[in-house]
Amino acid sequence: MKAIVDLCVVPIGVGVSVSEYIVACERILKEASLKTQLHAYGTNIEGEWDAVFAAIKRCHETVHVMGAPRISTVIKLGTRVDREQTMDEKVRSVQVKLQ
Amino acid sequence: MKAIVDLCVVPIGVGVSVSEYIVACERILKEASLKTQLHAYGTNIEGEWDAVFAAIKRCHETVHVMGAPRISTVIKLGTRVDREQTMDEKVRSVQVKLQ
Amino acid sequence: MKAIVDLCVVPIGVGVSVSEYIVACERILKEASLKTQLHAYGTNIEGEWDAVFAAIKRCHETVHVMGAPRISTVIKLGTRVDREQTMDEKVRSVQVKLQ
Amino acid sequence: MKAIVDLCVVPIGVGVSVSEYIVACERILKEASLKTQLHAYGTNIEGEWDAVFAAIKRCHETVHVMGAPRISTVIKLGTRVDREQTMDEKVRSVQVKLQ
Repeated sequence: MKAIVDLCVVPIGVGVSVSEYIVACERILKEASLKTQLHAYGTNIEGEWDAVFAAIKRCHETVHVMGAPRISTVIKLGTRVDREQTMDEKVRSVQVKLQ
Repeated sequence: MKAIVDLCVVPIGVGVSVSEYIVACERILKEASLKTQLHAYGTNIEGEWDAVFAAIKRCHETVHVMGAPRISTVIKLGTRVDREQTMDEKVRSVQVKLQ
Repeated sequence: MKAIVDLCVVPIGVGVSVSEYIVACERILKEASLKTQLHAYGTNIEGEWDAVFAAIKRCHETVHVMGAPRISTVIKLGTRVDREQTMDEKVRSVQVKLQ
Repeated sequence: MKAIVDLCVVPIGVGVSVSEYIVACERILKEASLKTQLHAYGTNIEGEWDAVFAAIKRCHETVHVMGAPRISTVIKLGTRVDREQTMDEKVRSVQVKLQ
């Protein structure tokens, strides 16, 4: 089952600057060969369900090892069985109609 | 790694009444022996990471088999390594201070 | 327009213990005469749109005044125009079918 | 108070294709002169709190008028008082460290 996911990892207890933790997560997602797109409030991910969630688990494990005692993550998770759809198609279907 | 999760599964393309799909997910979570608490905008879940996400995957598979062509789910996901914490403790720590 | 909301306020930069901030938000919601239900990963709120979002704004203002330099909040927000529905009805419609 | 928001509006009861509703919301956000960035699972918004939430309310009103009986929206909402930060800076602070 393919999934399109929006991932937002929020480390708690490490101060206000959290970009180094986000960077570590981005690297984990890339190493997992997942298609990703960073934005200002998270990262879009496209891939097979098991690969996506294995990578998200590694993100939590890594952010804890880096020193964050607590993490509060938000995941938006889309699956569909009527047809295949990519992240690019989702964005383009809106952009085309906007013009 | 233990996780406290808030799960909200939204079936799309099956009309406005979605409670039968939520019921199916509740049954899957119970069968997985996860501790759960239903509320008005989702379900709190407490358990081991792998058990929680295996159950969430079965929820998506089942809701699709029941006829939903598309699902948009929201997951809030908390882990901590400084100490153990249960769902009950989270609620009580607020309620005690409220009084 | 009536809304059913799930609110989860996460103060950042104040350490791992955040319950005092959640307590302050609970008090603001009560003072606003909104119907609320605390759970382990947020608070359900039922009320008129403007009253709900005015209270959420006061929560952010107050949590900042209490010392949190940064806040990352998650809001699930449901509205419907086909019929009225309360938080209690949402929970009961699932519980009845579960039995 | 300035806010950086991630908005994801999910119309329910109108079938699986929802891009026309997202297009309507994008237009409302532009007309409100808010800075926005569409992605594959929502739209980032930067602006003053009141302007942002007035626009989100218009999105719900409009999507209902367009025929959606029910809407389930997810909002991630960030505010900070330690310093100003734009959406562009958030993305760049991660991208710079990634290289």
